[in-house]
Amino acid sequence: MSLTVIGSLAFDSIETPFDKRDEAFGGSATFFAAAAARFGEVGMVGVVGTDMPDQNLADLRDLGIDCQGIEVAEGKTFRWGGRYEADWNTRTTLFTELNTFEHFDPKVPAGYQDSPFVFLANAAPAIQMKALEQFKSPRLVVADTMNLWIDIARDDLVGLLKKIDGLVLNDEEARMLSGENHLLTAARKVLDMGPSFVVLKKGEHGAFLIGKDVHFSLPAYPVEKVVDPTGAGDSFAGGFMGYLASVANFQPHTLRRAMVYGTVTASFCVQGFTIEPLVANDRAAIESRYNEMISFITL
Amino acid sequence: MSLTVIGSLAFDSIETPFDKRDEAFGGSATFFAAAAARFGEVGMVGVVGTDMPDQNLADLRDLGIDCQGIEVAEGKTFRWGGRYEADWNTRTTLFTELNTFEHFDPKVPAGYQDSPFVFLANAAPAIQMKALEQFKSPRLVVADTMNLWIDIARDDLVGLLKKIDGLVLNDEEARMLSGENHLLTAARKVLDMGPSFVVLKKGEHGAFLIGKDVHFSLPAYPVEKVVDPTGAGDSFAGGFMGYLASVANFQPHTLRRAMVYGTVTASFCVQGFTIEPLVANDRAAIESRYNEMISFITL
Repeated sequence: MSLTVIGSLAFDSIETPFDKRDEAFGGSATFFAAAAARFGEVGMVGVVGTDMPDQNLADLRDLGIDCQGIEVAEGKTFRWGGRYEADWNTRTTLFTELNTFEHFDPKVPAGYQDSPFVFLANAAPAIQMKALEQFKSPRLVVADTMNLWIDIARDDLVGLLKKIDGLVLNDEEARMLSGENHLLTAARKVLDMGPSFVVLKKGEHGAFLIGKDVHFSLPAYPVEKVVDPTGAGDSFAGGFMGYLASVANFQPHTLRRAMVYGTVTASFCVQGFTIEPLVANDRAAIESRYNEMISFITL
Repeated sequence: MSLTVIGSLAFDSIETPFDKRDEAFGGSATFFAAAAARFGEVGMVGVVGTDMPDQNLADLRDLGIDCQGIEVAEGKTFRWGGRYEADWNTRTTLFTELNTFEHFDPKVPAGYQDSPFVFLANAAPAIQMKALEQFKSPRLVVADTMNLWIDIARDDLVGLLKKIDGLVLNDEEARMLSGENHLLTAARKVLDMGPSFVVLKKGEHGAFLIGKDVHFSLPAYPVEKVVDPTGAGDSFAGGFMGYLASVANFQPHTLRRAMVYGTVTASFCVQGFTIEPLVANDRAAIESRYNEMISFITL
């Protein structure tokens, strides 16, 4: 398996100023894998409850995703409810029911343990570490995190940062983790904590990547009609890692291109609910928008 | 004169969370000209009171700026006071004393009237129009505006938009002028009002240019220590127009490079009070940061 993701599968109930959707199939690993699958093989490690319809996993398999790492446990699947305000940047969590994800004990299948590319999607840092330890000698490990873990599991997270190659995080998380307000200063401080590079996502304001030998900044794709931002960050990571795994390297010039692919896959994600826009847009659609992005940023 | 700017000269009293400065030499034309002068000749049309120290105009001349279009009128120079919050995006006007600028009647010197490149810095649209009518056949006319004129002089502004080639405005102004929230949609609507291109400035989030044949988007230069954002927009315009005038064309690829020069000159501007950082950084410093910006945005 060239790329493996460890993370959540969930049902999301979303309210926006314009629309709503109950129990939409989501989760960090789901969005990541749906985005990464356009670039090559990807295996998922996660847990669902017995309430997960077979059709949802069949939809993932139809995208070419390997689902043997998805455990079906007694109980219900992780559920999350949230509401977005009209600026899309303000998100209120309405409820969180961890259910089977509460005691998620990641078991990386034997066939995934030699993955060269590993993405640790958002989960408690201790769980991310437990998953990471099951890989033999990954070439590139990238992790995501969230405010909650920076707040309640900082020591575990700091420990994890020493074991990974890249960290993706958003502006708020970068400020919280580093204690710095200026985003470039914040990202540099996170670099000092261990990773070789940091991808800092600023939503509609784009993203930048900074590492020892690379600094690349790019705007977001200007999506005119956002439907649901849920999963955008994981889709970004999926496009980013999917591309890296597909070309089997992470040289600075490859990381730059991967940032554009991440931007493109995230831009598709926000145009609909759940993974629907990722299913609807194939690699040709991704390449078309990639070329459009390149025209926006090239001198 | 290859480039002429019409606009204000002023004394700005600035408060920031970290510092303050009283009666700093400023004004839209001042910042524009100080930025543009690094690229070639620039003439200023404006008005000051008899209280303007000779030294300030001498400083402009030292930058190579032609000051024969600056009228000295009986009375005081335009004064403005403002306070910035720690996010730099929230600006409160503490006072505005128009003084001699209230009845500004622009008189374009004969030697400027054949300028191929003209910038109408922020002023009442009727004044901008009165200045524009004095030019013989400019090749490229670009204007700036502000919320006040969109609010109280909308008809005049709409009339002006039909006579100019380019408009520079910030995100808030674009939304107000177009009635659209999404910035790309807003910019497209402004294009429909007349100009061939729109430069939309988003402060720390960068800027984009959109026209019939061009769409270019770029991040801001990541200034780590902002001192005073006053004049950033005019400095952007000065770098943008100064570069265009220096190469005497405005083909799409030239407009793209001009956006980078605008970004660079604005980034210097915010690193100090008044035009001090623009005086302190010569063309070589601009080229050095231009190349740094290119490295941040190139695949």
